[in-house]
Amino acid sequence: MATFMDSQFLLTTETAKYLYENHGKKMPIFDYHSHLPAKEIYEDLKYNHISEAWLGHDHYKWRAMRSYGIDEELITGNGAMDDKFKAYAETVQNCIGNPLYHWTHLELSHYFSYDQPLSLKTADQCLAVCNDKLTKEGLTVRQMIKASNVALIGTTDDPTDDLKYHYLIQEDQDIDVRVVPTYRPDMGINIDKADYIPWMKKLSDLVGYPITDIKGLVKALKERADFFDQAGCLSADHGMDYIPYVPASEDQVNVIMTKALGGESLEAHEVDGYKTYLIKELAAIYADKKWVMQVHMGTMRNNNSKMFKRIGKDSGFDSVNDHQIAESLSSLLDDIQEKSGLPKTILYALNPKDNYVLGTMIGNYQEKMRGKFQLGSGWWFNDHKDGMRRQLTDLANLGVLSTFVGMLTDSRSFLSFTRHDYFRRILCQLLGEWVEGGEYPRDLDFLGKVVEDISFNNANNYFTK
Amino acid sequence: MATFMDSQFLLTTETAKYLYENHGKKMPIFDYHSHLPAKEIYEDLKYNHISEAWLGHDHYKWRAMRSYGIDEELITGNGAMDDKFKAYAETVQNCIGNPLYHWTHLELSHYFSYDQPLSLKTADQCLAVCNDKLTKEGLTVRQMIKASNVALIGTTDDPTDDLKYHYLIQEDQDIDVRVVPTYRPDMGINIDKADYIPWMKKLSDLVGYPITDIKGLVKALKERADFFDQAGCLSADHGMDYIPYVPASEDQVNVIMTKALGGESLEAHEVDGYKTYLIKELAAIYADKKWVMQVHMGTMRNNNSKMFKRIGKDSGFDSVNDHQIAESLSSLLDDIQEKSGLPKTILYALNPKDNYVLGTMIGNYQEKMRGKFQLGSGWWFNDHKDGMRRQLTDLANLGVLSTFVGMLTDSRSFLSFTRHDYFRRILCQLLGEWVEGGEYPRDLDFLGKVVEDISFNNANNYFTK
Amino acid sequence: MATFMDSQFLLTTETAKYLYENHGKKMPIFDYHSHLPAKEIYEDLKYNHISEAWLGHDHYKWRAMRSYGIDEELITGNGAMDDKFKAYAETVQNCIGNPLYHWTHLELSHYFSYDQPLSLKTADQCLAVCNDKLTKEGLTVRQMIKASNVALIGTTDDPTDDLKYHYLIQEDQDIDVRVVPTYRPDMGINIDKADYIPWMKKLSDLVGYPITDIKGLVKALKERADFFDQAGCLSADHGMDYIPYVPASEDQVNVIMTKALGGESLEAHEVDGYKTYLIKELAAIYADKKWVMQVHMGTMRNNNSKMFKRIGKDSGFDSVNDHQIAESLSSLLDDIQEKSGLPKTILYALNPKDNYVLGTMIGNYQEKMRGKFQLGSGWWFNDHKDGMRRQLTDLANLGVLSTFVGMLTDSRSFLSFTRHDYFRRILCQLLGEWVEGGEYPRDLDFLGKVVEDISFNNANNYFTK
Repeated sequence: MATFMDSQFLLTTETAKYLYENHGKKMPIFDYHSHLPAKEIYEDLKYNHISEAWLGHDHYKWRAMRSYGIDEELITGNGAMDDKFKAYAETVQNCIGNPLYHWTHLELSHYFSYDQPLSLKTADQCLAVCNDKLTKEGLTVRQMIKASNVALIGTTDDPTDDLKYHYLIQEDQDIDVRVVPTYRPDMGINIDKADYIPWMKKLSDLVGYPITDIKGLVKALKERADFFDQAGCLSADHGMDYIPYVPASEDQVNVIMTKALGGESLEAHEVDGYKTYLIKELAAIYADKKWVMQVHMGTMRNNNSKMFKRIGKDSGFDSVNDHQIAESLSSLLDDIQEKSGLPKTILYALNPKDNYVLGTMIGNYQEKMRGKFQLGSGWWFNDHKDGMRRQLTDLANLGVLSTFVGMLTDSRSFLSFTRHDYFRRILCQLLGEWVEGGEYPRDLDFLGKVVEDISFNNANNYFTK
Repeated sequence: MATFMDSQFLLTTETAKYLYENHGKKMPIFDYHSHLPAKEIYEDLKYNHISEAWLGHDHYKWRAMRSYGIDEELITGNGAMDDKFKAYAETVQNCIGNPLYHWTHLELSHYFSYDQPLSLKTADQCLAVCNDKLTKEGLTVRQMIKASNVALIGTTDDPTDDLKYHYLIQEDQDIDVRVVPTYRPDMGINIDKADYIPWMKKLSDLVGYPITDIKGLVKALKERADFFDQAGCLSADHGMDYIPYVPASEDQVNVIMTKALGGESLEAHEVDGYKTYLIKELAAIYADKKWVMQVHMGTMRNNNSKMFKRIGKDSGFDSVNDHQIAESLSSLLDDIQEKSGLPKTILYALNPKDNYVLGTMIGNYQEKMRGKFQLGSGWWFNDHKDGMRRQLTDLANLGVLSTFVGMLTDSRSFLSFTRHDYFRRILCQLLGEWVEGGEYPRDLDFLGKVVEDISFNNANNYFTK
Repeated sequence: MATFMDSQFLLTTETAKYLYENHGKKMPIFDYHSHLPAKEIYEDLKYNHISEAWLGHDHYKWRAMRSYGIDEELITGNGAMDDKFKAYAETVQNCIGNPLYHWTHLELSHYFSYDQPLSLKTADQCLAVCNDKLTKEGLTVRQMIKASNVALIGTTDDPTDDLKYHYLIQEDQDIDVRVVPTYRPDMGINIDKADYIPWMKKLSDLVGYPITDIKGLVKALKERADFFDQAGCLSADHGMDYIPYVPASEDQVNVIMTKALGGESLEAHEVDGYKTYLIKELAAIYADKKWVMQVHMGTMRNNNSKMFKRIGKDSGFDSVNDHQIAESLSSLLDDIQEKSGLPKTILYALNPKDNYVLGTMIGNYQEKMRGKFQLGSGWWFNDHKDGMRRQLTDLANLGVLSTFVGMLTDSRSFLSFTRHDYFRRILCQLLGEWVEGGEYPRDLDFLGKVVEDISFNNANNYFTK
C-alpha cells in the first residue's frame, strides 16, 4: 500500500520512479498558456490570507463548495476569510477522486511544507501554517514562481491591451521568469455578443482610425499583432464554443459587419460567415509571424443567468458543449492552408468525445517539423489523472507521443504550477507501465530524453519564432 | 487468483474489503427508481417457475437470448418453462463479461443459495433448486424484498393511475417496505405520439372537466400531482429521447394543442414548443412540492417495427440515441430557474458520450444543499461494472462524490435488488484503489461514512419533502 | 517486469497464457476484410527492399513519419529506399504507445526473425536482415501468407471489376489460400462525387445497356452481384462518412438520377434520397444471396486538398467524423427489414463515441442465428490495444461476446496478418483478467472453445452462403 501523496505519488514501477526522479522532476516549467495577471507578477503581489490566494478567483473550488452545499456567502460573498477556508477544508475532504484533492495537497506540500490531509479537523492548524508563510515568511507571487522553477509564463491578453506590465517586467532586472503575452481576439470574433460594438470602438480608438469594414478590421488586428509580437508574443489563442464554417466573400462580410455595427441582429449563417472569414485572416497573420495558434473548443459558458447577473463570468457556471466539430474544423483548416499556409496549431478538446476527432485531425496537417499540429493537453474539466492519461494514451495511439509539447496550467492562481508536477508523474507512470509490461524496451536514456522533451524542451522549441 | 464470485467478489484490496464488510454490506436499500408493480407487492405474488420470475419481463435476458440465436418461441413465445430456462442457461454461459452473468449468479446465490456456475450442464440441477425455493419454500415477492433489506421502493406511474395498490400497501400492517409512487407524465408530454389523444381523454375524464388548452392541462396535471403527493410521492421522472428546447408563448402552445387534439400532424418546432412549455410548468410543480425531478435521456425506442407489431414495447428492441443535448438542456434548466426556481434534479445519460456534458452541467445549478443536482447512476446499458466505474469516476472527477445519492435498480424484477450489492462492491473497490494507491488518506471512519451515505443515507435525505 | 515483446507479450495471467498458447495461437486466419490486391497474390510478388513492402502503401506509417517531421521526399517521394527505411526506424522509436510500434516488431519477429528494437542505431542491421529475407531467402507474398496460416482473404472490389485474378487464383493448384472478392458499390452510391458519371458509364458498358433510371441501375448492380457471387463473394462492404436516411419514391429517385447524370448539382436531401433508396435495394440483394453486409462508418476523407492534389487518396490525410448516426441508421435498418428482411450485418464505428450506439443497435435486430448482427472489430484508428480492448469490453457488456466474428486486417500489406496474433493476445488477456478476478469460472475447455471460435470458427461459419 502506497503512502498518502509522498514523494512517489502516482509512481508504482521502478521505471516510472527512475524517469520522474532523474528526468521529469528537474526540468523547468514552460507554462505557455495561463490566465495569470502580469500586473501581479510585476507588483509582486503579497497575499494576506490563504483564502485570498486560494479562493479569490478559483472557480474549480467554488463549484465544489456549491456542490457540497456551502452558502454563497462563504464562496464569493463577504464571509470571513477564516470561515471560507474552513468551508473549503470541509469540502475538499469530500472531494474524493477529484483533482482538487490532489492539487490542494500538492500545493500545501510544495509551497507551505504542510503534509497533513486537509479536513475540518486540521483546518485551523493548516490555516496558521499557510498564513505564516504568506504574511511572515514572504511567500509572494514572485517567490511562488521561483519555488516552481518556471522559465516562461504565457498570459492571455486582449488585442487592445497595452501590455504595460509585460514591458515593465522585461525591464525589471529582478524578475527572472520570462512573461510573454498571448493574443486572444475572441472579442473581435464574437460579432454576436453584446460587447462587440464597444470593443470595436476601443480598437478603433487605439489604432486611430474608424473601422467600418473587414479590411479595416484585419488591418487593425494586424497592427495589434505586430505590437504583441514586439512584446514577445509567441502565440494566439481562440476560445470556441463550436467551430464556425460558412464561406463568405469580402463583400458579404462587409454587409454583415455593417448590420452588426448598426445594432441589427444577425442570422446564424451571417455570424458564422463573418467568423470564418476573420479566423482565416488571423491565421494568415499567425502563420506569417510563426506564432502558434491555440484553439480551445467545446465550452458552454454562463449557463446560470441568475448567478451571472449576480457574480459575472468565469465564476463556475460553465460546462461542456457537444457540437459536431469534425467537418467544419477540417474545412476551416483546409481553407487556411489553401489561403496562407497553416500556422503551428494546438487543438484542445473540452469534451472527451472529441479526442478521436482531434487526435486524428492533427495527422491531416503534419508537415516539415516535429509535431506541427498538436493535440492539446487535458484541459479544464479534463485536468486530472484520468483526463491526462486519456489524452496521453489517445495521442500515443493516434500520433507520435515524443513530439508532444506537454502541460500548461490554464490557471488564474500562482499556486497551480504544481500541476506540471502532477502531469509529469502521470506521464512517467504511463511510460513505466508500458516498459514494465513489455510493450516498449527499457531504454532509459531514450525515455529520459522523451520525458525531458515533453516536460520542457518540446514546448521551448515549439514556441519560438 | 480470486475464487469465482465468492464473498470478496470484485474486492481486491484490504481497504475495499473492510469498507464493504463493515459499511456497504449492512445498509438497507433505498430503491428510488424501479418499474416494479405495486400490485404484485400487495398481492405477494408467488411464482410457479423460475422462468416466470426471470424471463417473464426481462428484456435484458431476451436480447441476450436473441443474440445467441435462441428461437423467439423460447424467449417471449409459448415454449415450455423448462426449455426456456435451459435456453437461458446456455445463453448466459456465453455472456462472458456481460452484467447478466454477474446479476444471474448474484441472484442465484443470494435468493436461492445456489453457488454453481449456470450452464447447460448445471441447468437441470439449478432449475430444481430454484423452483423448490419458489414453490415449496415460499420465496414470494415480499420474501424477496425482505431478503434484500429494502427500506423503500419507488415505482413508476402514469399521472392517471389511481394508485390503489400504493394505498392498500400503506394500510397493510404486514408490509414493512415503504412503497411510493413516482409521477411520470411522458404520455402528456409526447404530443407527437399516437396515444396522446386517448391519454388526454382519460385525464380529462379523471379530473372531470374538458382539457382544451395548456392552462387546463397544467391544472389537471397539478391536481394529479397533488394526489400523488398525498400518496407519498417524492419524485417525478421524465424519459426523453432528446432534449426539446423551443420557447413558445401560451397562445402558441394553445394553437399547437388544438391542432394535435384535432388530429392534425405537427411540425417538429411545434412539438418542441409544446414540450418545452409543459416541462417548465411541471418543473415548477415539482419545485413547489420539493420533489426530485429525474430526467432519463438518450434512449431510442422500438427500433424493430416487425417485432413491435408482434410483441409490443419494452421487449428488448430499444437502444442508445446520440443527440446533441448540451445547449437545449442548459437553456431549459436556466428557463426553469428563471421561472420558478429549480427542483432537485437527477440527470441520467444513457449514452456515455454525454457523461461529461451532464457531469459538468450539474455543477452549473448547485446551491444551498449538498448535491442538489445529481449525475444519475450508471443506467440500463451502463448498468455494469465498467459503466458504474465510469459514472463514479466521472462524477468524482467533476463533482463531489460523497454527496451522490447512489444506485437504483430501474428493474421490473424483484430479484434485481442484488444490483445494489454489485454497486456497493464497485464503489468500495474504487475507494480502496485510491486509498491504497496513495491518492486519498486511509481514514476508514470517514470513508466508511461516505460508503454508508452513498449506499443509503444520501438518497434517504434527498428524497424527502 | 515483462521482457520486451517476447512470447508472452501482453499476457500477464496464467489463464491468459494458457488460452493463447493452447487455443488462440494455433487457429488459422480468416481475414474477411482486407485491401490486398489479388493480382499480387496470383503473381506472387517479390519485394526488392523492405521499404517497398513496408512503406509502399502504408498510410499509417506515412502519417507517423510526417508527424515526426520527416520530409515528404522520404515518405511518398523519390528518396532512396535505404534512407526511407532509416527515416521510418527513427520515427517508430518515437511512436511510444502507438500500434505501429507493436505491429512493426511483431512483423520483424514473425517474418524476419529479427528481435531487436528498431531504432536509428539498429536500422542498418535490421535493413540487411530484412532485405536478405526478401531478396535471397524467397519471402514472397505467397510465403508471407503461408507463414501466417491464412485460410481465407477477402479483398475489396468495385462491382465493375472483372475479378480476373480471383479466377486465376482459384484455378491455380499451387495456391492454398482461399481468396474471395468483396462487393463494394460505394462509387455507385456516392452520386455527389465527381466520378459518379464516368463510373456509371463504365457499368453501363460492362452490362451492355444504357442505365438511365434506378430500376436499370439496380438491375445492373444485381447482375454484377451475381457475377461476384459466382466468384465466391461472401460479403458486401459500404464505406459511409455518415448514415443517409431520406425516404424517396422510385419516381423521385429517377428525377434525382436524371439531374445527376445530366451534370446538375444536387441538394443534400436529394443525395440522401437516392442513397437511401439504393442502399435498401442493395441490402435486399445481399439478404437474398445470404451475403454479409459490412458497414464502415464515421470516416472523413481527403482533408488536405494540397496533399490530395499532390498524392491522391488513401495517403494518410483521412480522419474521424462525428455525425449523429443513431436515428438514421435505425430507420434505414428498419426499412430494410420491412422491405426484404435484413442480411447478416456488421456495423463498424470509426469514432469510439459511437460504440454504445452500435453496440446496442445490433441487439435490435438479432434473430434466428448466433450473432446475426455484429459490432465490428476495432478498426483503423482503433486498431490498437486500447481500441480492441474497448471494442471487446463494450461488446461483452452489451451483447454476447462468444458469438463475435473477430478480427480482420483491413490492410494493404501482406505483413499485417500479425495483427490477428495481436488481437488474440488481447482477447486472451481480457478473458484471463475476468477469470482470475473471480468474474467468470475457470472453465478452460469452454473458454478455449470461445477463443477458437472468436479467432476463426465464428467468422468461418458466418461468412457462408
